[in-house]
Amino acid sequence: MENLKALPGIGTRTAERLAFHLIKLSEDEAMQLAQAIRDVKRNLTHCSQCFHFTEKDPCPICSDPQRDKSLVCVVEQPKDLMAFEKAGSFRGVYHCLLGHLAPLEGIEPDDLTIGPLLKRAESGGIREIVIATNPDLEGEGTAVYLRDQLADVARRKGIKVTRIARGVPAGAEIESVSSAILTDAMTGRQSYDGGRP
Amino acid sequence: MENLKALPGIGTRTAERLAFHLIKLSEDEAMQLAQAIRDVKRNLTHCSQCFHFTEKDPCPICSDPQRDKSLVCVVEQPKDLMAFEKAGSFRGVYHCLLGHLAPLEGIEPDDLTIGPLLKRAESGGIREIVIATNPDLEGEGTAVYLRDQLADVARRKGIKVTRIARGVPAGAEIESVSSAILTDAMTGRQSYDGGRP
Repeated sequence: MENLKALPGIGTRTAERLAFHLIKLSEDEAMQLAQAIRDVKRNLTHCSQCFHFTEKDPCPICSDPQRDKSLVCVVEQPKDLMAFEKAGSFRGVYHCLLGHLAPLEGIEPDDLTIGPLLKRAESGGIREIVIATNPDLEGEGTAVYLRDQLADVARRKGIKVTRIARGVPAGAEIESVSSAILTDAMTGRQSYDGGRP
Repeated sequence: MENLKALPGIGTRTAERLAFHLIKLSEDEAMQLAQAIRDVKRNLTHCSQCFHFTEKDPCPICSDPQRDKSLVCVVEQPKDLMAFEKAGSFRGVYHCLLGHLAPLEGIEPDDLTIGPLLKRAESGGIREIVIATNPDLEGEGTAVYLRDQLADVARRKGIKVTRIARGVPAGAEIESVSSAILTDAMTGRQSYDGGRP
């Protein structure tokens, strides 16, 4: 119970319930879970190209011949990558920063995989880098920092640096979204014949 | 109580509570409320230019010399207009459609103020029309219909027809928004040096 309680989001009551459940498991089921937990630490590593979690390096996405290697989507965390994969609308590859800049919490550029991203850009073959950090304070700060850091190599190598669209979320009602969202929606408005007005 | 219960969102209990409150009001306060309700029906009309609710025609927004008359934001309802006004980031004028197209419910183009919008476009002096209908099924359908209806006059008069940005909402986390939102964010991504990639 002590070990379970140390997990995030699990309090005394849940730990108790989980512990009793574990006792009721068959030997096989219990061993399978134990094995899976051991495997996570033993076998899971970061892909040397995109820093996603993977069991073999490069990861299945980076080694998939169907994916467009010239289009790189930069996300904060592997869980963001997985959200895009679930959406299924992106056919390029990724780059996980493994965090966002937060100077007040001591998270500096060197703590993220910004160096490897610059090296990837430098090595050629990239047509576009889409910055898909979160649309919050730290994510936007990180996006602006990346844009500036990438400016030089992007110019030399002809790489387009883009940012995912901020705006009103699909399915929402204009009357009930925040002022910040409406300002984004107005500022980012796009012409029907392409490009910004 | 019967009259109060007829209002939307007010059940028996709330009607009872409101009725007792009205009894406790001073004569002055009660008359003020009665007067306000009478005034809404007597004095409130639609602005003949933008179809917002107003007491005098044209409405305060249409008659404000500080507003950019060449930039028209098309919304479904006055409440959407009020959301944009609260956001404070739009300095043009509006056009309220007074609904959205919903053929299955029998709401056809003639039920909306699309005719007057086309006339407004035709009369000149407009540089851009921003379509700001809701990012839902009916709103998108209405936006596409408007785009097509406006195409001819827009070409002749040099009017740019734009759509508010759909994407991830400010402050959200990528890992927790829907796939539809992520697809919008990716599709609508914008280059840092302007325009779409």
